[in-house]
Amino acid sequence: MQLLVEPVARLIDEFSRLPGIGPKTASRLVFYLLRAPEEQAQSLADALRDLRARITFCSICFNITESDPCAVCTDEKRDRSVICVVEEPLDVIAIERTRDYHGLYHVLHGTIAPVEGIGPDELHIADLLPRLDAMPPVREVIIATNPNMEGEATAMYIARQLEGRDVRVTRLARGLPVGGDLEYADEVTLSRALSGRQTME
Amino acid sequence: MQLLVEPVARLIDEFSRLPGIGPKTASRLVFYLLRAPEEQAQSLADALRDLRARITFCSICFNITESDPCAVCTDEKRDRSVICVVEEPLDVIAIERTRDYHGLYHVLHGTIAPVEGIGPDELHIADLLPRLDAMPPVREVIIATNPNMEGEATAMYIARQLEGRDVRVTRLARGLPVGGDLEYADEVTLSRALSGRQTME
Repeated sequence: MQLLVEPVARLIDEFSRLPGIGPKTASRLVFYLLRAPEEQAQSLADALRDLRARITFCSICFNITESDPCAVCTDEKRDRSVICVVEEPLDVIAIERTRDYHGLYHVLHGTIAPVEGIGPDELHIADLLPRLDAMPPVREVIIATNPNMEGEATAMYIARQLEGRDVRVTRLARGLPVGGDLEYADEVTLSRALSGRQTME
Repeated sequence: MQLLVEPVARLIDEFSRLPGIGPKTASRLVFYLLRAPEEQAQSLADALRDLRARITFCSICFNITESDPCAVCTDEKRDRSVICVVEEPLDVIAIERTRDYHGLYHVLHGTIAPVEGIGPDELHIADLLPRLDAMPPVREVIIATNPNMEGEATAMYIARQLEGRDVRVTRLARGLPVGGDLEYADEVTLSRALSGRQTME
């Protein structure tokens, strides 16, 4: 006997293709949906269809958007002299939540990861350079890639591409997380916090 | 600025409604799907639609099936004198995998859980009784609910319902799991293994 009826087996397969979802979790989800009200599977299916049908990438900053160019790139109130380079659309949201940044963005959609075969050409790095020639001129590029090995390598690569241009290239401060505990900080974070120490005012 | 475009926010919401998936995991899944080939979100959506469109419950045993009655209930080679009562369709699959059981099933779709407001009437317990009057008569009901508090309570309830009938009511053996380690077994399992000890042959 075939143990799983085909539609169930297929949905388990589809869920298992998602990152972080193994076959056990996938079958839990499927059997949950079988018992949930019918509209739940339906509205998840609708949302999945709409995602790719309605979402596109901004042709300027490559953030996700419903209309191209995106709301940030077309917002007259944003400071067009600063571009913040991030890895992912989620990073844009994280920075927007601070309400402390009012410039533009540039979303790379990944980091340089030679092991996974991702080189600079797979990312939107080359697309950043023409943006610097816009008027008014960009005076600062903040490289906000993640503070890990791939993020650092990507930041270094971009900084080299920008060498010789009349633009300030900065990197987000590394140090102790606010609310964190010095005792539990790893050595690298702590030594970054030391070398980046600031005068108290 | 609205931080998340609507189709993304909606899909994150939909994923978050699934058990064990929080908002962080949900947004990771959504941004993964945004970068994955378009057909992936599409085929997940299709599988979700098919699930409820093509799957129904067997009107005899309440297992999931594409055609009613299900493949087990209509299989002439199955032993119609034994019914194994399980909590979920996944339990049927687990038992089928052993290849040691050739009788019929009865899927309760849950356990008695007063705290969650699930009483006997919310489960397919009453539907079990008429099945016992079938010809040939059922000589054994194996209650294979989970060996936890809810499963035990449900087993006890069903056993009481079957009292006075000419049917053997059994429960799966509790004991040390095969490949397990006596040292790490909990007291309850160990005392069950002791009281259920069997003569070596």
